[in-house]
Amino acid sequence: MRECAEHYSKAGVNAITVWRNVLEGIKLIDARKMLDDNGMQVVSLCRGGFFPSVDKAQRQTAIDDNLLAIEQAAAIGAPLIVLVCGADGRQSLEANREQIKEGIITILPAAKAAGVKLAIEPLHPMYAGDRSAVNTLQQANDMAVAINSPYVGVAADVYHLWWDNHLEEEIKRCGANGHLFAFHICDWKTPTLDFLLDRGLMGEGCINVPQIRGWIEETGFAGFNEVEIFSSIYWQQDQQAFLQKVIDAYLHHS
Amino acid sequence: MRECAEHYSKAGVNAITVWRNVLEGIKLIDARKMLDDNGMQVVSLCRGGFFPSVDKAQRQTAIDDNLLAIEQAAAIGAPLIVLVCGADGRQSLEANREQIKEGIITILPAAKAAGVKLAIEPLHPMYAGDRSAVNTLQQANDMAVAINSPYVGVAADVYHLWWDNHLEEEIKRCGANGHLFAFHICDWKTPTLDFLLDRGLMGEGCINVPQIRGWIEETGFAGFNEVEIFSSIYWQQDQQAFLQKVIDAYLHHS
Repeated sequence: MRECAEHYSKAGVNAITVWRNVLEGIKLIDARKMLDDNGMQVVSLCRGGFFPSVDKAQRQTAIDDNLLAIEQAAAIGAPLIVLVCGADGRQSLEANREQIKEGIITILPAAKAAGVKLAIEPLHPMYAGDRSAVNTLQQANDMAVAINSPYVGVAADVYHLWWDNHLEEEIKRCGANGHLFAFHICDWKTPTLDFLLDRGLMGEGCINVPQIRGWIEETGFAGFNEVEIFSSIYWQQDQQAFLQKVIDAYLHHS
Repeated sequence: MRECAEHYSKAGVNAITVWRNVLEGIKLIDARKMLDDNGMQVVSLCRGGFFPSVDKAQRQTAIDDNLLAIEQAAAIGAPLIVLVCGADGRQSLEANREQIKEGIITILPAAKAAGVKLAIEPLHPMYAGDRSAVNTLQQANDMAVAINSPYVGVAADVYHLWWDNHLEEEIKRCGANGHLFAFHICDWKTPTLDFLLDRGLMGEGCINVPQIRGWIEETGFAGFNEVEIFSSIYWQQDQQAFLQKVIDAYLHHS
């Protein structure tokens, strides 16, 4: 946490989404101080969600964990939690989607009370069986519209959405509804070697990031362009050099 | 080829889709005889397609190869070619889709003359960068409608389409238009370990195959339910035992 805050800040990157695993073992007040001392703005806390399960007790465990995430977000000054909504392959997509909606509605009062927004992040269809039954921006928009709260919106990640021929219209739609809360970028490599950890730097793959960013900005979105590159390849490299590669890719290919 | 024809036939499986790689090194007339001698009906030839490329010469090579596939299909008695449409990650999805459409229109006269139909198979969005820029049944239907020929339709594979919340309506749509040409089944395992070769037997994963088959049959589709399980795990096993597993899965989970 301290390493990220210091090095990002020195490199001119003044905002960060905090993953909950890096909060383990440190006091939230200390985490906030590390961020504040380095002038880091917190974009969001990642991640809440994983609501669905065929097991009712497991669904309650998920609710409890999301309530904890809301407390953590408030404590470190994160105005937003990104929701990786979840999916249980033992039940239908419809049941999963209903339980996601129910989960969000259940935690919404606590989110409101804490002043923390919730972003439904549609995940690539290759995760529909285990990570999220919300797989298109249309579905995420539909769910946000159905819940109808200024505290519930969407997070748009090019990695998950780039292939969708309805992407431009759905970005416009969530912009018009005022529920576009976050924008994540990276690239899709061909071939991709791992389902989770082989994302590319912008410019390395086949996603037209500048085009999608253009659609995002046309909505009036004034938030950060968040680079999110899960990569066992890059994570094995020197992380200072990787940070510089991220910055270069951001400046030249997004 | 002979092994498949004999063993499938003995097991009571009387129809097959022939992959072009198994035709290599044998005369088409001999291939047809192997099939006929075992009472095997040919459902389709797999596969044509791979139309798009930034390189014009490569696009012509693809056209030539598809024309050869039409000859092969006619020679072995296949009434249909399944098209894995292709994608070149170096150009936009729109350009890829336009080149796919152009490619199909270019080979259509030869297909008609040979009495061979062409099925656009939408592939899972995880293949949008390299194998197919047609990634939903809606897109495949739109393309078939735009081309508007009784020789051009779609192939619906549960593996590629199961996650899509518009699947039922798009199956109805292609049924109503009379261009539902093929139906492929298998299952999506969680976790899936490989982008290509880790499909599951029906019942092993999270796809509701009976539900989707129900939608297919409601359209009046009277073709075969084709089991298509690319799996490095199963392919390493005894293939007679695997054939029996396929039959059992088909009878109990589809």
